[in-house]
Amino acid sequence: MKPTGPIPDWFAEEDGMLLIGGCGALSLIDEAGDTPLFVYDMGIVRATVDRLRAAMPEGLDIHYAIKANPYAPLLGRMVGLVDGFDVASAGELDAALKAGMRADAISFAGPGKRDAELRAAIQAGVTINLESEGEAERALRIGAEIAARPRLAVRVNPDFDLKGSGMKMGGGAKPFGVDADRAAALARRVIASGAEWRGWHIFAGSQALNPGSLIEAQAQTLALAARLSEDVGASPPIINLGGGFGVAYFPGDMPLDPRPVGVALEEALENRPSILKNTHFAIELGRFLVAESGVYLTRVIDVKDSHGERFAVVDGGLHHQLAASGNFGTVVRRNYPIAVANRFGRPVSAEPVSVVGCLCTPLDRLGDKVVLPPIEVGDVIALFLAGAYGASASPAAFLGHDPARELLLD
Amino acid sequence: MKPTGPIPDWFAEEDGMLLIGGCGALSLIDEAGDTPLFVYDMGIVRATVDRLRAAMPEGLDIHYAIKANPYAPLLGRMVGLVDGFDVASAGELDAALKAGMRADAISFAGPGKRDAELRAAIQAGVTINLESEGEAERALRIGAEIAARPRLAVRVNPDFDLKGSGMKMGGGAKPFGVDADRAAALARRVIASGAEWRGWHIFAGSQALNPGSLIEAQAQTLALAARLSEDVGASPPIINLGGGFGVAYFPGDMPLDPRPVGVALEEALENRPSILKNTHFAIELGRFLVAESGVYLTRVIDVKDSHGERFAVVDGGLHHQLAASGNFGTVVRRNYPIAVANRFGRPVSAEPVSVVGCLCTPLDRLGDKVVLPPIEVGDVIALFLAGAYGASASPAAFLGHDPARELLLD
Repeated sequence: MKPTGPIPDWFAEEDGMLLIGGCGALSLIDEAGDTPLFVYDMGIVRATVDRLRAAMPEGLDIHYAIKANPYAPLLGRMVGLVDGFDVASAGELDAALKAGMRADAISFAGPGKRDAELRAAIQAGVTINLESEGEAERALRIGAEIAARPRLAVRVNPDFDLKGSGMKMGGGAKPFGVDADRAAALARRVIASGAEWRGWHIFAGSQALNPGSLIEAQAQTLALAARLSEDVGASPPIINLGGGFGVAYFPGDMPLDPRPVGVALEEALENRPSILKNTHFAIELGRFLVAESGVYLTRVIDVKDSHGERFAVVDGGLHHQLAASGNFGTVVRRNYPIAVANRFGRPVSAEPVSVVGCLCTPLDRLGDKVVLPPIEVGDVIALFLAGAYGASASPAAFLGHDPARELLLD
Repeated sequence: MKPTGPIPDWFAEEDGMLLIGGCGALSLIDEAGDTPLFVYDMGIVRATVDRLRAAMPEGLDIHYAIKANPYAPLLGRMVGLVDGFDVASAGELDAALKAGMRADAISFAGPGKRDAELRAAIQAGVTINLESEGEAERALRIGAEIAARPRLAVRVNPDFDLKGSGMKMGGGAKPFGVDADRAAALARRVIASGAEWRGWHIFAGSQALNPGSLIEAQAQTLALAARLSEDVGASPPIINLGGGFGVAYFPGDMPLDPRPVGVALEEALENRPSILKNTHFAIELGRFLVAESGVYLTRVIDVKDSHGERFAVVDGGLHHQLAASGNFGTVVRRNYPIAVANRFGRPVSAEPVSVVGCLCTPLDRLGDKVVLPPIEVGDVIALFLAGAYGASASPAAFLGHDPARELLLD
């Protein structure tokens, strides 16, 4: 057997049935029509945002990076919960505006913005996080062409990384932002051009579970932003401190407690250099806000044995939940938290079972030798932490199956 | 610098421009409208099929596994080139029938076929490759319900694997097919039920480049099929020998020469046991038939330096070509063959460059420290071996960009 990640605390059971937002998993499937199904519980998102706000310093803006989950009904609810959206394409910009987020609370990051995307962003009045000198010149040219004043922040490739992070986005040669030693010059260029300089965007990494790492990276970010601002000789209107708040996916992972991070950030902000006194601060989170809210439900089509091992074959797979199969951004495959939704909290079998997707490829494995209650055809498997980087981050067309259904619980 | 895989021999240049099917890459982009663009050259597919037919024994059927590339115009052309299609879902079955392949030349494999998929397959009259005893009972029940006689082959999980293959699909506990020691009983059950028994499907692995491994696996497959048929006491109408013919993606890979495989198979078939004398044989290939025909063209949006390293940021990325980013089925990231389409065959720069996609994630890297001619904004990058497991096997919706365009050259 192999261990699985921890099931988030939000999920209860009633008569052996997994409850999501107080509703039984099978009745949610009935409501949605069929499996495979992603269920997102806004109650969990709201509670997560509330807990984060309570932990973070007063006045710190919380932005949602919509790439984590761009499901339109969820985006609509997020507008009222967070202070801004971060988008990464013209398509996401469009989705953010359609959801009702006001343009001046949207920022647009991404190393490969096309001219048409820059134009859409300038026209809409959102902040563009500049990724290079070349992109700056293109944005200024397009602003002049359409007689609009671009709102431009400078994304900095920091000289440090976020320690223990799943994905490092600083601390060396990176395609994101401009190196710290060129950032001030770029900000001066923006200011001199007559564009609106919106400040700094500094994103050191993602998916860190250790508060100490986040505290250290935020302190370094503040110090870097202050130094760069001194270099520019101007006070930045906004500093986007990035994100990096992780989620406990795997065996041994401890959920991140944001409170010590908030305490340290409050102290750091109170003692910030004078050039940052009038600066507004934001953090930008995707996964942390929505991952725990989501459950992927998929029905067992077949149970079979091969060479003494048991397999449960489900009607979903990596075409909906690529990350859970271990094929997206992880080197060693590990098990996401998993359960039998209709035997939730029931005694487990002595025999491990591998939960495999319906795709005709050995890559399609959602649970490797996991210990679950004895499984029968027709049972429903629940894969947790499916609220971020699930449906939209998977190869939906692969092998010609239908896309997963999605259901939002208010 | 890091090495790249070998560019297939099919591609010439004219005045520094990559030619695909005799057409310049930039003019193809004009024709399609924009980058990112997949171009598939049917001339290469035809030549590959011809080469394979010349190498293989007379009378051996060549089936195309459409999961490799289900682009509808390509499927339409494949109907006239190959002897059958293998499908892996009701969606693919529908695509195969729409392309014009006759039902009795279609087989349907996949460990998680839903009842509705079995029904569609039985109604259409295609061969179902049974993956388990449970699936057999469901197929028989559905056949009775709709008063149709199912055509059922038994997929066998072989006791051996395909040595050196990228994905092993035999030689131990697997979710595919039934273990060899239960296969004869299942075939007898099919025959006794009154269904049409179509024989055996034995698929030992995929992506092997060593002819010796394929020769050995095919010999073992024949021996296993003969032994199982003796157990059943019946001659199988068809044996699908699987596939496994690999493609040279990576540095050091040598393209597979199918000729020794064909010579050995011909000899093996000539000397086959008498119970297989009237059996028809097929091989089932996806990647090998179409991978080399495809080129992914993506335009350079930005060229930037960071900490002494150079990055070219393109308008495509892993949302179109996940496998080339190293995030699909590979443990260690290696470089696909790559070139600058509009500086093809030109002298390379001393400085390596990393070609990164437009997505705001460090995973989106299409070429890692590769040596190319000096790159400028507006250049077009060509990623080769994009004809299989490209557009349809990538998370197209990730980060809200448009899907890639596709263009078929006749």
